[in-house]
Amino acid sequence: MRTTTGWQVDGATATLRRARFERRDLRPDDLAVRVDYCGVCHTDAHAIGAHDGGSGVPLVPGHEFTGVVTETGPAVTRFTAGDHVAVGNIVDSCGECPMCRAGQENFCHAFPTLTYGGTDRHDGSPTLGGYSREYIVRDKFAYPLPAGLDPAAAAPLLCAGVTVWEPLHALGAGPGSRVGVVGLGGLGHLAVKMAVALGATTSVISRSPGKAGDARSLGAHEFILSTDPEQVADARDRFDVVIDTVSAPHDLGPYLRLVAMDGTLSHLGHLGPVTVETMDLLVGRKSLSSAGSGGRPATAAMLAFCAGKGITAEIELLPSAQVNEALARLRRNDVHYRFVLDMSDLS
Amino acid sequence: MRTTTGWQVDGATATLRRARFERRDLRPDDLAVRVDYCGVCHTDAHAIGAHDGGSGVPLVPGHEFTGVVTETGPAVTRFTAGDHVAVGNIVDSCGECPMCRAGQENFCHAFPTLTYGGTDRHDGSPTLGGYSREYIVRDKFAYPLPAGLDPAAAAPLLCAGVTVWEPLHALGAGPGSRVGVVGLGGLGHLAVKMAVALGATTSVISRSPGKAGDARSLGAHEFILSTDPEQVADARDRFDVVIDTVSAPHDLGPYLRLVAMDGTLSHLGHLGPVTVETMDLLVGRKSLSSAGSGGRPATAAMLAFCAGKGITAEIELLPSAQVNEALARLRRNDVHYRFVLDMSDLS
Repeated sequence: MRTTTGWQVDGATATLRRARFERRDLRPDDLAVRVDYCGVCHTDAHAIGAHDGGSGVPLVPGHEFTGVVTETGPAVTRFTAGDHVAVGNIVDSCGECPMCRAGQENFCHAFPTLTYGGTDRHDGSPTLGGYSREYIVRDKFAYPLPAGLDPAAAAPLLCAGVTVWEPLHALGAGPGSRVGVVGLGGLGHLAVKMAVALGATTSVISRSPGKAGDARSLGAHEFILSTDPEQVADARDRFDVVIDTVSAPHDLGPYLRLVAMDGTLSHLGHLGPVTVETMDLLVGRKSLSSAGSGGRPATAAMLAFCAGKGITAEIELLPSAQVNEALARLRRNDVHYRFVLDMSDLS
Repeated sequence: MRTTTGWQVDGATATLRRARFERRDLRPDDLAVRVDYCGVCHTDAHAIGAHDGGSGVPLVPGHEFTGVVTETGPAVTRFTAGDHVAVGNIVDSCGECPMCRAGQENFCHAFPTLTYGGTDRHDGSPTLGGYSREYIVRDKFAYPLPAGLDPAAAAPLLCAGVTVWEPLHALGAGPGSRVGVVGLGGLGHLAVKMAVALGATTSVISRSPGKAGDARSLGAHEFILSTDPEQVADARDRFDVVIDTVSAPHDLGPYLRLVAMDGTLSHLGHLGPVTVETMDLLVGRKSLSSAGSGGRPATAAMLAFCAGKGITAEIELLPSAQVNEALARLRRNDVHYRFVLDMSDLS
């Protein structure tokens, strides 16, 4: 076994503390990655809040990170030491079910191995995430980080980025299509950048008038204030795709009514039951879908697209020692638009 | 004004009684139709149950009927006396909104005029339905009944038929696609006939083992007993389109899990809120939609398709005087597969 340093909670409090913990020795198809930058995702905050420590296993969050390969197992051919790589929220899957064979490892019938809070499918050990200086990952689930993408600002692409890329891509956002993005946060700001770069006419729908300027700077063609009934009425039945990034449970009706005939409301980031009025779907033959994460081909395609268009996240880079401050600010939505931890302060 | 005879409830009881009531004089673009056959739709039973008579206006149900034109207004050019026609569940719309201009009068922003229980948009009178010997209808909302379609068995196409046609057509059911039809009743049996005729590999999903034989007779390629966990597990992630015709509120999760990657569950006939688990949509990037009724172009296309393929409903034809018996049997699902009333017993 090898050891690394990272930030963990043990369940007694929600405060992360610096600790040393073990990493597995490299298997033939493993990479050792020196983690340089790790994004702070809403999921991390939820997981910390939900962790009661009952299992005795600490929680090390972090599932969107970039770094440099330091060592490779003997069967690894795609990477060598020194390569810049990126890792997202899944690190393994069964590889044999129809979903894995279709390149949708995120939907693996045997459930994908999560980057943290999961269980390694070979040795049964708990997975500990990217809030740490080193991560050991199966080569198939590491992605070459394209040259030209800032490694700190690219880290959030691996979770937030692919989560918005998947529905935009699957629903055909592009020239001639109209995309509405509800909420301008970590997910929303990347959805705007990608939709604009895909060629779609892109609108931001937000209840915060103060975000109108940011929406324009990010390239949005329009800002719709969701608390203004006139603006909302004017936007009725207008968008082929509405990406709803609001994470708290909320009424989907108002956003379904913005969807055009035969269009789709794709909502992200809220797990649990959602309720819709049949009439809101029926009238206009609209669809509801849900998105989160992506498979290996989509992740690679998203990275290539972002490299081609120069898209990264808007970030606030903090030393990893400020992780608790970052999480506290994230919980009160005080972030523009994604915190990324600089891991170089970990030995 | 002119008068006709039909079957109505006034709210005191749920029993329909024979009565005479008024029809408007023909406007320039109106047809007078001698109603020969009118289907008995689940909506009729719901409307009768919900009618409290408080408005003082009786309820005359019936929104899927066929008959013969007896008289035309001076501006009517598409029909002449003697033509066989069919009328569905809407009889007018604003004609000016984006939905009407797109041929989706069923989604008219100003709300379409329902064939019964609605309000005429010109004179404000209540609309009284097709359980009657004569109906006056705007020419745009009557359809030529294609030669070769039995007028009694064709009547249910105008509501049940177009309701299943719309999602099958919009979702691309055809050669190479796999369609699952949940429930084998008035809607379901037409969905099976149409899906098979469209060239889709078609399965019936039902909790009634006794329907397996009927499913095969209707052309289905497979019967899945929804109470058998093995058969259900075997059908997981298998259908590009699942048409859910179960009218009572129910858990959509089991049917979403039958939908293939990027496929759609379209549920019909249940109005009101529905709740789905985000994970059931997310895993496999599935969509939920809802369907009911269709616009004028879809209705005409459906009739042409059915004429070409020889598709009509499986019906039990009863004299209209047995309407209360038909409704009682419908309420206990004792119908194979649609009741149609023969109106020739009305003077």
